[in-house]
Amino acid sequence: MGLGKRCTAEFIGTFWLVFGGCGSAVLASVVGAKLEGTDVNIGITLLGVALAFGLTVLTMAFAIGHISGCHLNPAVSLGLAAGGRFAAKDLVPYIVAQLLGALAGSAVLYVIASGKEGFSLADGFAANGYAEHSPAGYSLIACLVAEIVLTFMFLMIIMGSTDSRAPAGLAPIAIGLGLTLIHLIGIPVTNLSVNPARSTGPAVFVGGWALMQLWLFWVAPIIGAIAAGALYRGCFEEVKAEE
Amino acid sequence: MGLGKRCTAEFIGTFWLVFGGCGSAVLASVVGAKLEGTDVNIGITLLGVALAFGLTVLTMAFAIGHISGCHLNPAVSLGLAAGGRFAAKDLVPYIVAQLLGALAGSAVLYVIASGKEGFSLADGFAANGYAEHSPAGYSLIACLVAEIVLTFMFLMIIMGSTDSRAPAGLAPIAIGLGLTLIHLIGIPVTNLSVNPARSTGPAVFVGGWALMQLWLFWVAPIIGAIAAGALYRGCFEEVKAEE
Amino acid sequence: MGLGKRCTAEFIGTFWLVFGGCGSAVLASVVGAKLEGTDVNIGITLLGVALAFGLTVLTMAFAIGHISGCHLNPAVSLGLAAGGRFAAKDLVPYIVAQLLGALAGSAVLYVIASGKEGFSLADGFAANGYAEHSPAGYSLIACLVAEIVLTFMFLMIIMGSTDSRAPAGLAPIAIGLGLTLIHLIGIPVTNLSVNPARSTGPAVFVGGWALMQLWLFWVAPIIGAIAAGALYRGCFEEVKAEE
Amino acid sequence: MGLGKRCTAEFIGTFWLVFGGCGSAVLASVVGAKLEGTDVNIGITLLGVALAFGLTVLTMAFAIGHISGCHLNPAVSLGLAAGGRFAAKDLVPYIVAQLLGALAGSAVLYVIASGKEGFSLADGFAANGYAEHSPAGYSLIACLVAEIVLTFMFLMIIMGSTDSRAPAGLAPIAIGLGLTLIHLIGIPVTNLSVNPARSTGPAVFVGGWALMQLWLFWVAPIIGAIAAGALYRGCFEEVKAEE
Repeated sequence: MGLGKRCTAEFIGTFWLVFGGCGSAVLASVVGAKLEGTDVNIGITLLGVALAFGLTVLTMAFAIGHISGCHLNPAVSLGLAAGGRFAAKDLVPYIVAQLLGALAGSAVLYVIASGKEGFSLADGFAANGYAEHSPAGYSLIACLVAEIVLTFMFLMIIMGSTDSRAPAGLAPIAIGLGLTLIHLIGIPVTNLSVNPARSTGPAVFVGGWALMQLWLFWVAPIIGAIAAGALYRGCFEEVKAEE
Repeated sequence: MGLGKRCTAEFIGTFWLVFGGCGSAVLASVVGAKLEGTDVNIGITLLGVALAFGLTVLTMAFAIGHISGCHLNPAVSLGLAAGGRFAAKDLVPYIVAQLLGALAGSAVLYVIASGKEGFSLADGFAANGYAEHSPAGYSLIACLVAEIVLTFMFLMIIMGSTDSRAPAGLAPIAIGLGLTLIHLIGIPVTNLSVNPARSTGPAVFVGGWALMQLWLFWVAPIIGAIAAGALYRGCFEEVKAEE
Repeated sequence: MGLGKRCTAEFIGTFWLVFGGCGSAVLASVVGAKLEGTDVNIGITLLGVALAFGLTVLTMAFAIGHISGCHLNPAVSLGLAAGGRFAAKDLVPYIVAQLLGALAGSAVLYVIASGKEGFSLADGFAANGYAEHSPAGYSLIACLVAEIVLTFMFLMIIMGSTDSRAPAGLAPIAIGLGLTLIHLIGIPVTNLSVNPARSTGPAVFVGGWALMQLWLFWVAPIIGAIAAGALYRGCFEEVKAEE
Repeated sequence: MGLGKRCTAEFIGTFWLVFGGCGSAVLASVVGAKLEGTDVNIGITLLGVALAFGLTVLTMAFAIGHISGCHLNPAVSLGLAAGGRFAAKDLVPYIVAQLLGALAGSAVLYVIASGKEGFSLADGFAANGYAEHSPAGYSLIACLVAEIVLTFMFLMIIMGSTDSRAPAGLAPIAIGLGLTLIHLIGIPVTNLSVNPARSTGPAVFVGGWALMQLWLFWVAPIIGAIAAGALYRGCFEEVKAEE
């Protein structure tokens, strides 16, 4: 399929990842209800946010996987290129489409979220952060290690589950639920990125600290992704030639 | 299969969507328990309600997908027609069957829910609403945008995952969990519809404001669904002719 | 495979359904933790219990479906017989094996649960009940309707997803997550049965009211299951002959 | 594929199981948020931890199942050997790789977790324990029975879902969600092991009581696993010869 259509699919998919994932966090994680006169939270909590991020990828991998490969993430595109699964010449248009989709997702989320009294970008808008902006106060080093390791494992899952020797057609489930798992581990650390486009969308709206900390959410995921792509290719794929 | 049997399947499936989805919200979202003498909520919260709505579609798509296509939703039938996947001549009988199923689902839920002391339709009965009837107080515009965008993406998932190039047999998982994801994002906004039949069922029982606000839950989902059906057809399907 | 081995599989599977489903409720639904000095529940709540019941069936359907068909439920065996999918002559041995498995599951759960100080069968041991023994106080009629309707839909899912026209191999997912959905709707009503064997296991240990109310959890599921088996067979299967 | 590469895959997979499963518990199970001025938990609770453990196995089974079989667990390797599915001569290298992966997973988790002020290994670091170190105070006998029975059923799921008569390619879903189910039942009992490598990783960091109680989490899982492997082989597999 033509590059323009593939990039359109990447735009729509990354829009969905950012709008759906960050949207679930901003709109639905804390919602009050009354139980015997006391306030209880019936919002979806971080468990629901983790599920939402994963399901954006699961649904798009089934919906547009056959069109663009459904990367939705500059680190994934770079990791797949390092792993020999994606042509380097398509990297720039893919990453541009992903960034535009992330910005559009954040913009539509802003329109909806700001339709409620009391909304404020100062509450974070699901932007990623470290140290004083880590949700639970994790240090820069802890955040850097977490993002590198989690992106490394994300690419291992992607490389492995789309290997021709893995069960056919089920990679969307492995990859989507893999992203859910990654969020179950790490939301309190950095609000969880493993995806520079996902980090850039909200950061542009929040500005200030979010933009100043954005470097980590480009550097760490890209390091982890390229390392995993190269490792899988070097260690686990050469065997195919031996067969 | 004959149109009568296909409509019977749509009736049963939409019954299940409304009874199961709204039922989980009305019967199970808040349930008290004691922990060290204080009241805690062991109900399923909005996360469980989101899962329930999605699983009604996942289970029916496996159970009756081979009979009627398992639309369960007038917006889906219209979007698939716009996408060239459904014959326009079957639209009216399908939509009538879906509405009757939704009403039946609400009626059976009413029988069960009213079997508990203190039950009141004034608590909402899972009807959809905007502005002063938005669960968390979102404006009309925010609700309109949310319903249009979420139905648009729902149809993108449906069109894409049932494409002949997508993995065979797995669309029920993508579509069902896609509806779960949509609810994870938007229950606090409108109680989440993306489905005019689902909205009509409880509104008939609640009456008053629910009927007066019902127009939005017909207009917005239909706009989003037709736009997505047409976009997918125009942008992503023509390529099949090129192959 | 021989009837003895098929019944052994049904015994193990029903053991797992009762031990795992009721076990998650008894052992894990409410667990305290400290947050800023106040007690919060980090137990799995009714959402986790619903997931656990469904996953017992999902896992066993993959593990022993090829051996015994994985009914694990007298109502399922009867409904499948009514639907023309199971030989009536095997009903009695299957149901006996299911009951023995349920009793064994309750017995092992009792051994573990009673290893914690303060455990008491008077807390319910996950037995099913109606009216004054309905978890949230639902009337006899509400409980009867709920169990009939939910078992009816459970058998619709089973008949449909194992139809030769449905996607091959995925019925365990549809049926298992269907049972999760059923629990998401109805635990507050009856503690949810749709399965006479599952109800009988804990009732034998609890005695008294649980045994006196056990009739409903045999009558209602069997009515719903036979109705669905007969309806699917009559309405949706005859078409195969027309093809 | 060569034994070295298969052991590398087991190392990576067991790293992921311990880092991801224990990491979700240590980093994300309890996280505070404000609702109407009161503290509520928006952490993932034991339900999220159960999901995380299962998804580590689901994702790795899709990613490296075709390389090493994805055991990630000495009890699984031994049970599969007893079941005739794994060569006894590979047991020692597999188990060594699993232990090294578990230690590496715990080490990386320690680096991240200790990046938050107030972190203490004395809070448990997700180590397994019984009696006074059982999370909810279950006796030694209750813990022993739970670990034996749950590992027995885990191996039944593994043996059955990877049987050539089971649906092809879906065993990762059955096995991964099976481990989730097992955790839904038993985290309050022992913090849940069914895996000697998973127990050994955190115990080495916690030391003291965790090392002294480690024997149970080797003995019980291995008993349960070997019993299930032998039972499945003896009871359910011989039929293949009859066909």
